[in-house]
Amino acid sequence: VDEFDLIRSHFTHTYDAKLLQQKGVVLGVGDDCAITQLSAQDQLVFSMDTLVAGTHFLPDIDPEDLAWRLVACTVSDLAAMGAEPLWITLALTLPKIDPTWIAPFATGLKCACDQYGLLLIGGDTTKGPLTLTAQVHGKTPKGQAITRAGARVGDDLYVTGTLGDSRLGLELLLKPDQHGLALSKAQTEFALARFLRPTARIEAGQALRPFASSALDISDGVAGDAKHIAKASGVKLIVDAARLPKSHALKPVDEALARSWMLGGGEDFELLFTASPNHRDAIQALSATLDLPITRVGSADVGQGVQISGIGELEIAGYQHFSTHGPSLDQL
Amino acid sequence: VDEFDLIRSHFTHTYDAKLLQQKGVVLGVGDDCAITQLSAQDQLVFSMDTLVAGTHFLPDIDPEDLAWRLVACTVSDLAAMGAEPLWITLALTLPKIDPTWIAPFATGLKCACDQYGLLLIGGDTTKGPLTLTAQVHGKTPKGQAITRAGARVGDDLYVTGTLGDSRLGLELLLKPDQHGLALSKAQTEFALARFLRPTARIEAGQALRPFASSALDISDGVAGDAKHIAKASGVKLIVDAARLPKSHALKPVDEALARSWMLGGGEDFELLFTASPNHRDAIQALSATLDLPITRVGSADVGQGVQISGIGELEIAGYQHFSTHGPSLDQL
Repeated sequence: VDEFDLIRSHFTHTYDAKLLQQKGVVLGVGDDCAITQLSAQDQLVFSMDTLVAGTHFLPDIDPEDLAWRLVACTVSDLAAMGAEPLWITLALTLPKIDPTWIAPFATGLKCACDQYGLLLIGGDTTKGPLTLTAQVHGKTPKGQAITRAGARVGDDLYVTGTLGDSRLGLELLLKPDQHGLALSKAQTEFALARFLRPTARIEAGQALRPFASSALDISDGVAGDAKHIAKASGVKLIVDAARLPKSHALKPVDEALARSWMLGGGEDFELLFTASPNHRDAIQALSATLDLPITRVGSADVGQGVQISGIGELEIAGYQHFSTHGPSLDQL
Repeated sequence: VDEFDLIRSHFTHTYDAKLLQQKGVVLGVGDDCAITQLSAQDQLVFSMDTLVAGTHFLPDIDPEDLAWRLVACTVSDLAAMGAEPLWITLALTLPKIDPTWIAPFATGLKCACDQYGLLLIGGDTTKGPLTLTAQVHGKTPKGQAITRAGARVGDDLYVTGTLGDSRLGLELLLKPDQHGLALSKAQTEFALARFLRPTARIEAGQALRPFASSALDISDGVAGDAKHIAKASGVKLIVDAARLPKSHALKPVDEALARSWMLGGGEDFELLFTASPNHRDAIQALSATLDLPITRVGSADVGQGVQISGIGELEIAGYQHFSTHGPSLDQL
């Protein structure tokens, strides 16, 4: 049993149906967001994420970048549900009161919230090791939130955007020369921006509500995150590694290395979703409307777990641990 | 300028009225809870609190007690708004996965949540220095949440329960013999329970909705917390120190020391509220119904700030810092 599964088992309470209805709970622990009944028409979806210095970000991170990262990684869960962002609350634990840190952090927070239409309406400030917890709240029309549980055998599997860029950005920050990469200035800037200022696919998530049968946002890599859809939906997901969308910045990277970053690099915050083959034309049209690549990378079949195809057996073996290893930044 | 005021100023965004209405925001940063429009009939109120090891609790605290404390201190904000508890989300940052710690913590959390009618429906688990952030969500009928801003000149000032017990419990844990206290077993157990397993006044808060013009929960001591109502309501609050409700456990404690704990001890999680003198009989009846002392301890007058009466000038001087010193566990 994975240790994070162990933790989750302690906090996945079972409530009887009457109590859930009385309290307006539609979906509890286990998906990208919890869902509650907001009114007869709307449902409230919300998600909480914590970033810890040293664990989730480099200690010397620019505070403005940190604020952007916090907002993007939380609001990305709303994107995965197809929700419209409403409010954010922030618990900020700081080792000391440093105005030269707080001012740019607050600026980044305000800009990122404005970009996604989030209003900051509450929170807490405390003294302690640098830790940030944010909760984002959004809404969807009743019954239209996209969960992880709706994938059906025969569905197509898609990802938005391109994969592995964030990991490339991180590598460039940590060890600029080690990979012997000859990146252009544009490629370098693109990769750094993808790591430092990730974009949550809020528009795409809402636009996909009529088409997607299941969705989540990629925070631990396609190979690891796909298993959550497979498990929740009771299907096997087949990922064709050769079809994974690669950006111009990843072109100079060795092919096997680039593939490992695309499959397991994490923190892309792109959407991974399934949809019926009937929607292929609609999804292609949506991709054009949003000016965002949406790539078919596989399908759902009878079975369980995730199967990586299109690469050699030996390389596949390297991703087997993703089928049992839980993510460090997962929801309870 | 107080340093916490400085932080808050960075995160108190001003939004235009149209945007607030569009996003359903009724009340943002600054009260016990934020308020949003849940439906035509109901409003959603929510509050977030963080507890940091070493800052807010003793590192060797029993994990079951810690869970109770976390739930009580967060749900107490719902009590202060007169809200019915609905859901809780939990961000748990742990230095290591220790089942002998997690199991009792989870047990305490489940029991405390059940007591207050809270369903645990989401959160996050991460690795890092022991830090807990919880957000509680509740509802009130539209327009009936009790804020800090409604006190009027001429109102009475009340507190529920008794004050200073939690501080006595803490002192007993930290330095059992230092105060030369001769407490009975019952007195000791009472004080320890008040510190280790504080009770949020959820029932009282909801019952006070028709009567209270303003309210908050006491987390930093009456002397310090009263100023929040005074400021938000634009009145002066006069607290008669001689009327502060003292439990049987505090009787053996030196009078001036007991008073200092009642005025500034903090973490009582009792409700401090104002109400029109017209409601005196109703509030007395409510006290009997709830089997909970509700004591009139002062009044609201023209002016600003908090005036402590009923004790000597020198002793009063000792509490002056409460009028400028912000709380460490305050909302943004």
